[in-house]
Amino acid sequence: MQQAVHSISICTRGQGLYEFTDALDRFVAESGIATGLLTVFVRHTSCSLLIQENADPDVQTDLVGFFRRLAPESMDWLVHTTEGPDDMPAHIKSALTQTSISIPVVDGQTVFGTWQGIYLFEHRRRPHQRSVVLHIIGE
Amino acid sequence: MQQAVHSISICTRGQGLYEFTDALDRFVAESGIATGLLTVFVRHTSCSLLIQENADPDVQTDLVGFFRRLAPESMDWLVHTTEGPDDMPAHIKSALTQTSISIPVVDGQTVFGTWQGIYLFEHRRRPHQRSVVLHIIGE
Amino acid sequence: MQQAVHSISICTRGQGLYEFTDALDRFVAESGIATGLLTVFVRHTSCSLLIQENADPDVQTDLVGFFRRLAPESMDWLVHTTEGPDDMPAHIKSALTQTSISIPVVDGQTVFGTWQGIYLFEHRRRPHQRSVVLHIIGE
Repeated sequence: MQQAVHSISICTRGQGLYEFTDALDRFVAESGIATGLLTVFVRHTSCSLLIQENADPDVQTDLVGFFRRLAPESMDWLVHTTEGPDDMPAHIKSALTQTSISIPVVDGQTVFGTWQGIYLFEHRRRPHQRSVVLHIIGE
Repeated sequence: MQQAVHSISICTRGQGLYEFTDALDRFVAESGIATGLLTVFVRHTSCSLLIQENADPDVQTDLVGFFRRLAPESMDWLVHTTEGPDDMPAHIKSALTQTSISIPVVDGQTVFGTWQGIYLFEHRRRPHQRSVVLHIIGE
Repeated sequence: MQQAVHSISICTRGQGLYEFTDALDRFVAESGIATGLLTVFVRHTSCSLLIQENADPDVQTDLVGFFRRLAPESMDWLVHTTEGPDDMPAHIKSALTQTSISIPVVDGQTVFGTWQGIYLFEHRRRPHQRSVVLHIIGE
């Protein structure tokens, strides 16, 4: 049984979904692990992780649109406003999605379904450099 | 330290919660692992996973009712509509719940609380055959 | 490769976020594991887990405020009402957040970002004693 850990950096340019499924595939391949468990962890609280359909980009447009409507910047009852009008909605969207996702690995590959990809979901308007940790254990 | 992986198939007949806690119990027992970590992963983006109360079925009725109201088919601003009016709401509900859940195993059993069960949360109207992967590591 | 499991008890005094990041740090340190995977699991369906900013307490106020508005006790269409008006909203808030979170461990520490802390998110009004299971695997 062995482990590997790797940090990746994802540069975002405003709110939206940034796919990084390829980075997972490379990490799993380089680990040499055939059967195991891959964990993806994002080290921030104003962006998050999402496994979603990577076929039709309209799905991403609608996901961003839904969360913008669910936690709009116009929520005038918010008290945490010092970091800008998009900050507290970002924390809320992050709470509603994932900070950590684990994916089984079989035959040296993640068990993603045909249409599944993993995305960093950026909730802030300005560009950010986001840090994501990958961990795998198996053999 | 050892691992086991198993795929199960869950046939759904419309929107709702389908409990499969028994399948987890069987998989853990057959693995022979006493202490470890069980991960459940669903290979789709229009259904999801949920750990919820399995005592009163009314809880399931209300969960389905809440998510139907939160992401209704009447959202007329959606652009991803080619796969039917229930498809994009399904992706949204999936984003708001879980694709992957990990559960510690102690004394050969998941550490579920008294009232906890695990459900496949089907978000599509038509029947589907859903693929769920179980992975356990431990000894 | 080794494992450790530990149960902790968190006493809540009404709805809100209760940080227990310290308990994770102690558990990881005592396990002696330098590289591994830590999993946190809550054994209830009316409270949940959340990784969020632990710098400005206003963030917690707003998170509680958002979820109270999203799943208010005034939802008169609910059918599961026998356990009190705050019970079904609690199940819904739990479904929208996490029951289980896994965090990579590197150099004997969780890879939490600078502003990340882990919270038990209590959704019931009355005091409760909540059971959380910690599991670590690594070496």
